[in-house]
Amino acid sequence: MDLLEKRILEEGTVIGTDILKIDSFLNQQIDVSLLSEMSKDVYNHFKKYPVNKVLTVESSGIAFACLVAQQFGCRMVFAKKHKTKQLTDAYYEAKVHSFTHGDDNIIKVTKKYINNGDVVLIVDDFMATGEATNGMMSIVNQAGAKLAGIAIAVEKGFQDGGKELRGKGIDLYSLAIVESMSEDGIQFRK
Amino acid sequence: MDLLEKRILEEGTVIGTDILKIDSFLNQQIDVSLLSEMSKDVYNHFKKYPVNKVLTVESSGIAFACLVAQQFGCRMVFAKKHKTKQLTDAYYEAKVHSFTHGDDNIIKVTKKYINNGDVVLIVDDFMATGEATNGMMSIVNQAGAKLAGIAIAVEKGFQDGGKELRGKGIDLYSLAIVESMSEDGIQFRK
Repeated sequence: MDLLEKRILEEGTVIGTDILKIDSFLNQQIDVSLLSEMSKDVYNHFKKYPVNKVLTVESSGIAFACLVAQQFGCRMVFAKKHKTKQLTDAYYEAKVHSFTHGDDNIIKVTKKYINNGDVVLIVDDFMATGEATNGMMSIVNQAGAKLAGIAIAVEKGFQDGGKELRGKGIDLYSLAIVESMSEDGIQFRK
Repeated sequence: MDLLEKRILEEGTVIGTDILKIDSFLNQQIDVSLLSEMSKDVYNHFKKYPVNKVLTVESSGIAFACLVAQQFGCRMVFAKKHKTKQLTDAYYEAKVHSFTHGDDNIIKVTKKYINNGDVVLIVDDFMATGEATNGMMSIVNQAGAKLAGIAIAVEKGFQDGGKELRGKGIDLYSLAIVESMSEDGIQFRK
């Protein structure tokens, strides 16, 4: 998506070889009008499926997922990663390794919010190795729901997450795929 | 707001004397169409101010704040509560005590996302003692920005946060104020 690639080039900062910092519009400050345009693009790609639920993981996926759910006129569910006293009902869980922080998180979704008849679109801001996405797919599976596909704002194409998912025939739609990046510049996959 | 009070009565669960669980539409599963209606109500109350930024704190305030920012056509900023490698720039911080979890969090906002000329509307899902709200107000102050007011989905009116803020002359607008609650029922302030 040209609009997003343009903003990444204008405002993104690469730290080391692994971190693409775009918190001026996606990760701490949210440019809601840009995210609305991104959400329309996601809707156009996935509208062929009867999506009735959008799933993401807290925190930085929530704003994007909320606007995607608005396009579909459906509910959004976010997996909890942090401690909470609200999770008193039975829940699905999956282990997600964070390469950024070097630790494991257990992500959790209350069982009654994803059901057997649901058609789920997974939405997230970033994908690199696909750990978070795989965790969410596991939860969709455990619930016996159908996966429509996966929408990602920024895929790090130089890591293996996207390749593996596409290899499995999953409809993965990334709005921008970073082919390579360094402190000297960012190249997108065409 | 009648629509919200009705949903709280239909789907809310009170645990003990302190926890109002409404994660079926506000805290884990998000009913985006309800939140859109709530956001329009917030907009109508605060449209007299030249709000150009909405501020909340991760995670459960993000969806509501995002939709409020959509109404104002402005950006949304969320304070970080959890560890992140994205906060490499200078930031404002404030200490927030959590009575729910019995510990302190430091909330952080990158300095460049709230500025001197900004008119900020603080948005959050819950308010009880007002700890999180006070933390965000401290950040607005540190930035030299103006506070338009505070919009809360559900205020626990039996705790002191709201009373103190109104006593200071702050424009606090809560869509539902719980006057009292127990496992037997919930009463709203009229």
